[in-house]
Amino acid sequence: MGDAALSLEHVLVIFYQNMPAELEELIQTKFPDAEVTIYHSQKDVPVPSELYQSATILATFADLPDLKDSKNLKLIHTFSAGVDHLLQHPIVRETKIPLTTSSGIHGPPIAEWTIMNWLVSSRKYVKGYEAQKSHLWDKAVYNPGLHDQVGKKVGILGYGSIGRQIARVSHALGMTVHAYTATPRLTPESRHDRGYIVPGTGDPDGSIPASWHHGTDRESIRSFLATGLDHLVVSLPLTPETTRVLATEEFAILSKHSQHHSKPYVTNISRGKVIDQKALVDALNSGVLGGAALDVTDPEPLPKDDPLWDASNVQISPHVSALGFEYFPRSLDILAVNLERIARGQPLINAYVRGKGY
Amino acid sequence: MGDAALSLEHVLVIFYQNMPAELEELIQTKFPDAEVTIYHSQKDVPVPSELYQSATILATFADLPDLKDSKNLKLIHTFSAGVDHLLQHPIVRETKIPLTTSSGIHGPPIAEWTIMNWLVSSRKYVKGYEAQKSHLWDKAVYNPGLHDQVGKKVGILGYGSIGRQIARVSHALGMTVHAYTATPRLTPESRHDRGYIVPGTGDPDGSIPASWHHGTDRESIRSFLATGLDHLVVSLPLTPETTRVLATEEFAILSKHSQHHSKPYVTNISRGKVIDQKALVDALNSGVLGGAALDVTDPEPLPKDDPLWDASNVQISPHVSALGFEYFPRSLDILAVNLERIARGQPLINAYVRGKGY
Repeated sequence: MGDAALSLEHVLVIFYQNMPAELEELIQTKFPDAEVTIYHSQKDVPVPSELYQSATILATFADLPDLKDSKNLKLIHTFSAGVDHLLQHPIVRETKIPLTTSSGIHGPPIAEWTIMNWLVSSRKYVKGYEAQKSHLWDKAVYNPGLHDQVGKKVGILGYGSIGRQIARVSHALGMTVHAYTATPRLTPESRHDRGYIVPGTGDPDGSIPASWHHGTDRESIRSFLATGLDHLVVSLPLTPETTRVLATEEFAILSKHSQHHSKPYVTNISRGKVIDQKALVDALNSGVLGGAALDVTDPEPLPKDDPLWDASNVQISPHVSALGFEYFPRSLDILAVNLERIARGQPLINAYVRGKGY
Repeated sequence: MGDAALSLEHVLVIFYQNMPAELEELIQTKFPDAEVTIYHSQKDVPVPSELYQSATILATFADLPDLKDSKNLKLIHTFSAGVDHLLQHPIVRETKIPLTTSSGIHGPPIAEWTIMNWLVSSRKYVKGYEAQKSHLWDKAVYNPGLHDQVGKKVGILGYGSIGRQIARVSHALGMTVHAYTATPRLTPESRHDRGYIVPGTGDPDGSIPASWHHGTDRESIRSFLATGLDHLVVSLPLTPETTRVLATEEFAILSKHSQHHSKPYVTNISRGKVIDQKALVDALNSGVLGGAALDVTDPEPLPKDDPLWDASNVQISPHVSALGFEYFPRSLDILAVNLERIARGQPLINAYVRGKGY
């Protein structure tokens, strides 16, 4: 009995906000062989030391224990896709406690957000919505210009887990997919997705793109933009090189080479600053671009008087594309996979490598 | 020179409305080896006899020549999915001129319409749209209840070209697909799509569904509704058997067996009368159903004072889901395929078999 108790993991899950009871129940079922404590973190109130001390496994956004409270911890899992916000903490700098991320879980919701925005635009959803509010049955509100996505070309700048799920759905819609990555992916092996993949989604072996392109300089990106794209999806990390990498000239190149009757549509799901926002507003209002879907802006929140709000054919949402009921269960699926891997002595998935820099 | 002229086909294309010039140009390119005449039919003005007489190939919605003007006609292609509206015409009853339909081309636009409506509902698009109109950056308008489609079950009543493209995209979204057909499809061979398929779309060999169900009676449909579906897509032809086949009890069964936290969502893309519309309004307003997307209603146009307009979580469009720029080019692709088949002595695709009844 004593031995069994010693081997039982104690999973401490720290949420920022209250969760629906249904979600808490679901989370308890993820770890049938462990003791699970769910703690609701409050702003400016530290998590009790005793809780940290008794935990062997910690799942958290950004709450981390002091070094002295970490001695039982075997693994820290963050609900974030990255670890930038944790890198300065002593737990990361001064211990070797393995740290895993939630990278990979954002593909399905962000892909759904993306496809939704494309179709809302191409199929004029808002026209129908406004007509319904007025109880108006009128096909004419859809004229002219309904068109569909079959045969359209989508270029995806940054072919990670999100880009891959967008690719998967795009391909099913009858589109062709063109991938752009920082480093060359010349062999089939190099095109595999190495992170966590939500089962039944994504492009695990990188077989969907009709072509692969790469580079980190502006010229390489411009060459990609000149390949005749109908859609450009921006899924790049924000770095000094990618800051405002898409500006007036880039939108002009994209527009000049588009092959269909509708002008190119830009989707940004990475960071607002990857785009020169004033140039984007001009490109939309002048018809250089056909439309844009933006879940991110520069700055956030977008000020009330920003001209982006009313630019032509722009659809803006307040950085919500990754959100949803499935977020936490899916993140904890990664943790559950890793607990099994620990038990079997296998390497962790989604592990942060200290010193790698991101 | 005389011989070449004799072998040149003369394709007469009759449209109801003026087409964009761009579309007319595109259509001319579909038949590089034929003479093409595009005629814009006007209400209550007959198409000139001379035009019909000189045509060897006719593409039309419903305008057909008198028997005396049909002597050069080798093939009539209709822009409609079916031929019901033509069956009483002497050309159909008294000649053997082959008749082909546009069945198969509706899959991509109607599938896009369907997926758009699902995502608009599950990702609360309208909340964001209204916030954008007010220049309001507020994540809270999305709470609670964003959820995604991964792992959800969609049941498709009527697995034709439209259902198959919905299946293709659903599968890419990470959903499981369950097909329902009138006749049993027990062998892999019987699951193939035999009609025209828009390249790069659909489920040609019927390999997507996780399960197949069949029947024409209400009990068989009820059994299907009890399989734990999150989405029900209605893509049945309207017949005496399918008239109001979905009513109070059917919605209750669907609701009772749903497995996720959101109630089932119903999509109707066939005919309004397949659903008992009063029962649907009650099921939506009482929360038995989670929502509905309807491109068809009973009657059409839907009267201004119909309670359906304001039912809970209903998204209505005025029978436009098949429309778009691609409609005519795609329909004429079928005709182009058949002209090649005629030249090679192969059987036609999408041919109507006289006496078959539909």
